[in-house]
Amino acid sequence: MPAATPSVLVIHGPNLNLLGEREPEVYGHTTLAQLDAQLSQLGSQLGVAVICEQANGEGAIIDLLHHARTRFGAVVINPGGYTHTSVAIHDAIAAITIPVLEVHLSNLYARESFRHESVTGPACAGVIMGLGTTSYALALRHAAVLAGATSSPS
Amino acid sequence: MPAATPSVLVIHGPNLNLLGEREPEVYGHTTLAQLDAQLSQLGSQLGVAVICEQANGEGAIIDLLHHARTRFGAVVINPGGYTHTSVAIHDAIAAITIPVLEVHLSNLYARESFRHESVTGPACAGVIMGLGTTSYALALRHAAVLAGATSSPS
Amino acid sequence: MPAATPSVLVIHGPNLNLLGEREPEVYGHTTLAQLDAQLSQLGSQLGVAVICEQANGEGAIIDLLHHARTRFGAVVINPGGYTHTSVAIHDAIAAITIPVLEVHLSNLYARESFRHESVTGPACAGVIMGLGTTSYALALRHAAVLAGATSSPS
Amino acid sequence: MPAATPSVLVIHGPNLNLLGEREPEVYGHTTLAQLDAQLSQLGSQLGVAVICEQANGEGAIIDLLHHARTRFGAVVINPGGYTHTSVAIHDAIAAITIPVLEVHLSNLYARESFRHESVTGPACAGVIMGLGTTSYALALRHAAVLAGATSSPS
Amino acid sequence: MPAATPSVLVIHGPNLNLLGEREPEVYGHTTLAQLDAQLSQLGSQLGVAVICEQANGEGAIIDLLHHARTRFGAVVINPGGYTHTSVAIHDAIAAITIPVLEVHLSNLYARESFRHESVTGPACAGVIMGLGTTSYALALRHAAVLAGATSSPS
Amino acid sequence: MPAATPSVLVIHGPNLNLLGEREPEVYGHTTLAQLDAQLSQLGSQLGVAVICEQANGEGAIIDLLHHARTRFGAVVINPGGYTHTSVAIHDAIAAITIPVLEVHLSNLYARESFRHESVTGPACAGVIMGLGTTSYALALRHAAVLAGATSSPS
Amino acid sequence: MPAATPSVLVIHGPNLNLLGEREPEVYGHTTLAQLDAQLSQLGSQLGVAVICEQANGEGAIIDLLHHARTRFGAVVINPGGYTHTSVAIHDAIAAITIPVLEVHLSNLYARESFRHESVTGPACAGVIMGLGTTSYALALRHAAVLAGATSSPS
Amino acid sequence: MPAATPSVLVIHGPNLNLLGEREPEVYGHTTLAQLDAQLSQLGSQLGVAVICEQANGEGAIIDLLHHARTRFGAVVINPGGYTHTSVAIHDAIAAITIPVLEVHLSNLYARESFRHESVTGPACAGVIMGLGTTSYALALRHAAVLAGATSSPS
Amino acid sequence: MPAATPSVLVIHGPNLNLLGEREPEVYGHTTLAQLDAQLSQLGSQLGVAVICEQANGEGAIIDLLHHARTRFGAVVINPGGYTHTSVAIHDAIAAITIPVLEVHLSNLYARESFRHESVTGPACAGVIMGLGTTSYALALRHAAVLAGATSSPS
Amino acid sequence: MPAATPSVLVIHGPNLNLLGEREPEVYGHTTLAQLDAQLSQLGSQLGVAVICEQANGEGAIIDLLHHARTRFGAVVINPGGYTHTSVAIHDAIAAITIPVLEVHLSNLYARESFRHESVTGPACAGVIMGLGTTSYALALRHAAVLAGATSSPS
Amino acid sequence: MPAATPSVLVIHGPNLNLLGEREPEVYGHTTLAQLDAQLSQLGSQLGVAVICEQANGEGAIIDLLHHARTRFGAVVINPGGYTHTSVAIHDAIAAITIPVLEVHLSNLYARESFRHESVTGPACAGVIMGLGTTSYALALRHAAVLAGATSSPS
Amino acid sequence: MPAATPSVLVIHGPNLNLLGEREPEVYGHTTLAQLDAQLSQLGSQLGVAVICEQANGEGAIIDLLHHARTRFGAVVINPGGYTHTSVAIHDAIAAITIPVLEVHLSNLYARESFRHESVTGPACAGVIMGLGTTSYALALRHAAVLAGATSSPS
Repeated sequence: MPAATPSVLVIHGPNLNLLGEREPEVYGHTTLAQLDAQLSQLGSQLGVAVICEQANGEGAIIDLLHHARTRFGAVVINPGGYTHTSVAIHDAIAAITIPVLEVHLSNLYARESFRHESVTGPACAGVIMGLGTTSYALALRHAAVLAGATSSPS
Repeated sequence: MPAATPSVLVIHGPNLNLLGEREPEVYGHTTLAQLDAQLSQLGSQLGVAVICEQANGEGAIIDLLHHARTRFGAVVINPGGYTHTSVAIHDAIAAITIPVLEVHLSNLYARESFRHESVTGPACAGVIMGLGTTSYALALRHAAVLAGATSSPS
Repeated sequence: MPAATPSVLVIHGPNLNLLGEREPEVYGHTTLAQLDAQLSQLGSQLGVAVICEQANGEGAIIDLLHHARTRFGAVVINPGGYTHTSVAIHDAIAAITIPVLEVHLSNLYARESFRHESVTGPACAGVIMGLGTTSYALALRHAAVLAGATSSPS
Repeated sequence: MPAATPSVLVIHGPNLNLLGEREPEVYGHTTLAQLDAQLSQLGSQLGVAVICEQANGEGAIIDLLHHARTRFGAVVINPGGYTHTSVAIHDAIAAITIPVLEVHLSNLYARESFRHESVTGPACAGVIMGLGTTSYALALRHAAVLAGATSSPS
Repeated sequence: MPAATPSVLVIHGPNLNLLGEREPEVYGHTTLAQLDAQLSQLGSQLGVAVICEQANGEGAIIDLLHHARTRFGAVVINPGGYTHTSVAIHDAIAAITIPVLEVHLSNLYARESFRHESVTGPACAGVIMGLGTTSYALALRHAAVLAGATSSPS
Repeated sequence: MPAATPSVLVIHGPNLNLLGEREPEVYGHTTLAQLDAQLSQLGSQLGVAVICEQANGEGAIIDLLHHARTRFGAVVINPGGYTHTSVAIHDAIAAITIPVLEVHLSNLYARESFRHESVTGPACAGVIMGLGTTSYALALRHAAVLAGATSSPS
Repeated sequence: MPAATPSVLVIHGPNLNLLGEREPEVYGHTTLAQLDAQLSQLGSQLGVAVICEQANGEGAIIDLLHHARTRFGAVVINPGGYTHTSVAIHDAIAAITIPVLEVHLSNLYARESFRHESVTGPACAGVIMGLGTTSYALALRHAAVLAGATSSPS
Repeated sequence: MPAATPSVLVIHGPNLNLLGEREPEVYGHTTLAQLDAQLSQLGSQLGVAVICEQANGEGAIIDLLHHARTRFGAVVINPGGYTHTSVAIHDAIAAITIPVLEVHLSNLYARESFRHESVTGPACAGVIMGLGTTSYALALRHAAVLAGATSSPS
Repeated sequence: MPAATPSVLVIHGPNLNLLGEREPEVYGHTTLAQLDAQLSQLGSQLGVAVICEQANGEGAIIDLLHHARTRFGAVVINPGGYTHTSVAIHDAIAAITIPVLEVHLSNLYARESFRHESVTGPACAGVIMGLGTTSYALALRHAAVLAGATSSPS
Repeated sequence: MPAATPSVLVIHGPNLNLLGEREPEVYGHTTLAQLDAQLSQLGSQLGVAVICEQANGEGAIIDLLHHARTRFGAVVINPGGYTHTSVAIHDAIAAITIPVLEVHLSNLYARESFRHESVTGPACAGVIMGLGTTSYALALRHAAVLAGATSSPS
Repeated sequence: MPAATPSVLVIHGPNLNLLGEREPEVYGHTTLAQLDAQLSQLGSQLGVAVICEQANGEGAIIDLLHHARTRFGAVVINPGGYTHTSVAIHDAIAAITIPVLEVHLSNLYARESFRHESVTGPACAGVIMGLGTTSYALALRHAAVLAGATSSPS
Repeated sequence: MPAATPSVLVIHGPNLNLLGEREPEVYGHTTLAQLDAQLSQLGSQLGVAVICEQANGEGAIIDLLHHARTRFGAVVINPGGYTHTSVAIHDAIAAITIPVLEVHLSNLYARESFRHESVTGPACAGVIMGLGTTSYALALRHAAVLAGATSSPS
């Protein structure tokens, strides 16, 4: 299923465009552009092309998932606030056949109880949460393998 | 309320653009284009113009409903995953005065419990579910009558 | 499984014997006898024999479903108030192998919350609600097809 | 609405046929026959004909309510265990236009929590509970007035 | 336990002082003074002294119940809005050994769901609801018997 | 309390008349007639007369329980779908003084969550579930002892 | 309904007598007397007489609401902790026909979940919360209009 | 934080574009354009620039909030149906550091229970509901102060 | 914070005035006066002045707590039935800065489930329950220390 | 799967070591040693070796289940209080491939509601409850068959 | 029941071995050894032998309770995290006939909501919480009395 | 806090000793010994010593966590079934100051709803689930960094 050149799509959900600018004492000073650059660089090491997209709209995220269906070998997604509410994104993940990994900067279980449940999670292959931007990096390692990269296993 | 020429707007919600391509063993091999063609043809038999739109975004679906308010005699809508979460679409249906029929390919009651409740349903005139693309066809029959088509009652 | 002559059993649940006589401003002036006549006539057009039965008892409805098992090609049922409570009718529907369509005159989602859940629905092929007696007519159209009638698809 | 001769139907629900024979230390030694005789005698004093029926089946109770619709001026009903589960009996009470009073020998609020809610109660004019057979007697007093008896108000 | 002269205390809870003046289309034109006069007169017929008190405060109602403990043979109480919230009044009713009957003008089961549960009810001998001021009259009939009045049983 | 000749009534609830004919891959090929014959034979070994009845109606099952009250020493009952809903059958079991054992072919805890709770169970002496027709056989062994059979304890 | 001279009653519920003295870092250093003076002054500007009362008792607050019924054109109320529990105050607000505005110093939605629901709110015309003493000032502006003050709309 | 020229962004959520055209008996005849004009005029009086935007999409509203972050001194938002469901908008409000006031035309507590909870509310400074377009006007008064307008305090 | 002479206020909530007179087999024969005398005597031993008050009203209890704020070093309170319902008393305890200990004669966890939760408890320093009048004595020991008594630690 | 010599492991969970010594009026005078002897003797009759173990620790019970995996043909387990809480024991039962029967001395459905749900039950083949030590005996009969004993079917 | 020499067993549950070493700013600098020494010394004053045990395992705690059954006159237990989950410990406490007092260093009601309920509490004689190590000391005072110590009552 | 030689403790919870032997089609053929060897080897690459322990008992796992407190730089734990029930393990994780990462072989969100909530998760630094043994490997990568290994960031 993965394309000739292994590739991974990283989807940043709502509000992540403000990363590094808002509440830096909580989320750190890394901006989204810097995170994307780090992931791109890690992708190079792992032998996988990494494309990063950000969207605030539920429909736009669904569009990105559909887009990935035939063009990427795996997806890493941080659905942000839609994690806890979006049946439509859940269904989009279930509808595409490539593996999707869900990531979160913070530990959902350590926050408000309405963040403990992930509506999108059941459709994903796995979930990594609470490790800051490392959540993305670890997910990318595994996504690269799933996408067919020949790098050594994580 | 219906326009001079009776007409029905069919709104396909999120992920329905993948119809026929995803999980064909579940949803069949009929694509959305083919379904739309069938509905259009059935509309001709019933004496009603049928326009079909698809949107993945909650706001876009609300826009379509607002658009229909003064231009169509009835709406057939499959809100997809928004069925279970969207108070905003519920309010849009309640805000327009033309009748809206909700349809689902699958039987919601036979799926996960979070799909048993329809948030949008209370604002609709009725709901048809579980009959595959026939759910649409039956809804169109009744929508045509509500829109003022002079075809014999179903 | 359908008999040589395609046939559909219509089961009216509790209180439907009062149709047309009670709260006509809500349920209309069509009596149950008139509805049954309309369904019979529609059956003729669709090439399917239609038998209509009414029962107020849960056990009697189960008996009717069992009776239909080897004698009818499909069932259209309005379980009335048992819709929301009867595990036994659910099990009866699941036990027989012919398709069963659930119908309701009113839109359950627009009524008291205890009517939103259908206990019987998960065992049915589909559910049509909210369209008055048209709910029955549309269900009969599809039931006729399921029962093997050669009429054109709805 | 009441018939020429004011009359009240008393419906005893499931298990009340064992009254006086089971757990007499709880329910007393009055049998159902004796209770019915007392109610009949009280009816005579109040100027109202009293007919008493007992049924263990949900459908049979619905039949009795339908029967009362055009033949009695009011109904006194003890729905027994169906009180907490029967949407169908609720709908039957709502479907007939004569007033229905719900009675219980025991105080539902003082028993298991699943007995605190009355599914049938919302469709009734009122509820009297906890006073043993006096619950019936007080209800009959008011039912007689509702049925058009000219006895002095209670 | 009843005093030498059989007597019943009637306690009207919060807002009942406005009876007859507020929403007369709902609660009728009978004022609290008129209701009290009617109950007093009925008491005379039943051979029981009737004292009526009204209080808007939870503590005041508890005081009245304590006061009744050694001075009255029975209590008829309409706890109004405290019915659904007051553990303290529940405990007061349980603490005194004379029988207490709970009454309500309206049918609690036919109103908002938070009114279906009675917190005070489990401590009472019985509950009568939905019959307007007749709820009081019927309760008084039974309270008179419990208080030792020698009038004929209701 | 048991009759001179020890006897046990076996009550099969709704849909059990289809045993062996429906979903044989699930419920096996043993028909109800064959099961009843096996139980009768086992009864003979245990020195107890076994009578088997089947009913689809809630009221009919209550009638059977009442019937057993003075004529049998114990009851084995499979309330089928009523297990999870019937307060009325619960009350009937509680009303009769002979011991009642509840049985189920399948393991309720391994099925849908609405089948985990038994409404009828609290009134029974015990519950045996999940062992297919052996559930009945084991229950009969114990029921025979309770009914006064002099066979060796199981 | 408003009196000849437009007037508004401001009711401060439980614990508000300690305003300014307790937790000043949270509630500020404005005392209740100072707040009342500010509201009185604002009332003068708006052409409405402002009377302020404080009470810690549920019954006392009901008394104040009843008192306002015929003497004030509108009420501004901060029910304090009773907001979340008092059906009796809810009923008092519903019983009087003058408009009542509910105010809170803090944003209830940002506090413990048991403070998110307002029991008294449904009976009020509107709710203003979270703006400190400005919640009162804004409510008074609108209450003045509702009470018939001829000041310019807010 | 407010810009050199104090300014407030007003965000109208889904369906508010139909204001004045739909259900005028409920929402009045004021259109959104008229409301915006009124707010603009009030802003002039208060010494604050008022910009009004309307959007039906969840993502579009998040974009507007992000946009406001560095360009406005405060936001007044009516999230419409998203109030009860959107964690993403909640997070957007929490992410920007300018104060946000939530407004509603209707009293949420007086409507369906699913409208009682505000998901977006906890991130806002305060909430004003139930006062029709006056909810906006009062919020604007306070927002102007928060944005640094030198008009007299409300 | 404690006054020059260490002092503790003991607040007995609703129905405790009946202590020793009601249900003596449950609550013992010690009257409230006797308990207060015992606590006073124990206070003397501990070097702390003990004042005991009893009130049935929620507002009166709040008044007592406010009163204690500047006059006592600690409070021992048995909120009775208000324990489970009173947000207003919770807020009063939180508003005063002296330590408050909650006591109960009975073990709340061993009673009805609605008594397991303490609404007032979170605002208290600690809770002692289930030890009869000893609950008070132990609480007084600790309250004396908190109030500044120089008696040896308990 | 059963070993050459058919064998059954009986696991007694927490507190069962006190059997016969505690609350003998409830649990009888049979001690655990006596019960084990009876089961061993019954095993001899059934042609199956019976080994009985008792453990109070959750981990110890898991160890016993793992131990049984390759050494016994079936397990009879009374998980005691862990029945309602232990996901880990549930997983252990599911992990081993031999059949496990759950037994309880008492009828769980007749006890506190938190005992109605069995967390371990879904992983078992069946459940027998409420028959005292006979629950064990009946389970052993069936376990013997499952373990391959050639004794006649129960 | 108490032994010749009055004695009390103190059981410290999971994680209490770290007392004084972990989060000293929360739990203080007193180590478990120091606490045990204090309790032993207090026991001497009260005339009761005090033995202290600590265990992290649920089974080990049950073993300790069983051990105490015939060797101690009373138990003071801090079940730690098992307080909220262990039905097995609840049952162990209920199984032994000596009185057990539950203690907690912190006020459970002031912590996460899942700590408000005590599963073990209903089986205990009483509960003391929130007073730090004084919770133990006060419980020991009462336990000493219950164990038969002749020291003056607390 | 990490020891001179960076080290990580891996704790395998209940039933993981059967890894590779049970349900290999689900969990794969890798045994626990093989997984531990892989983790040890990966640790070598990362410059961190890896010690692996397995325990079925809740208390034993708490002991391991306490043991790790002063001897390891980080912990990777798979609490198995205790994930969803163990407050005691939660408290143990919170009590030790070294970072703990929770891992699961399967995606908890895609399993039974009682597995969606993690009781232990809130006390951990992060959670990785659903990636089979790769969940461990990724967690170890991050744990190595947290423990002070100088290997390049993942």
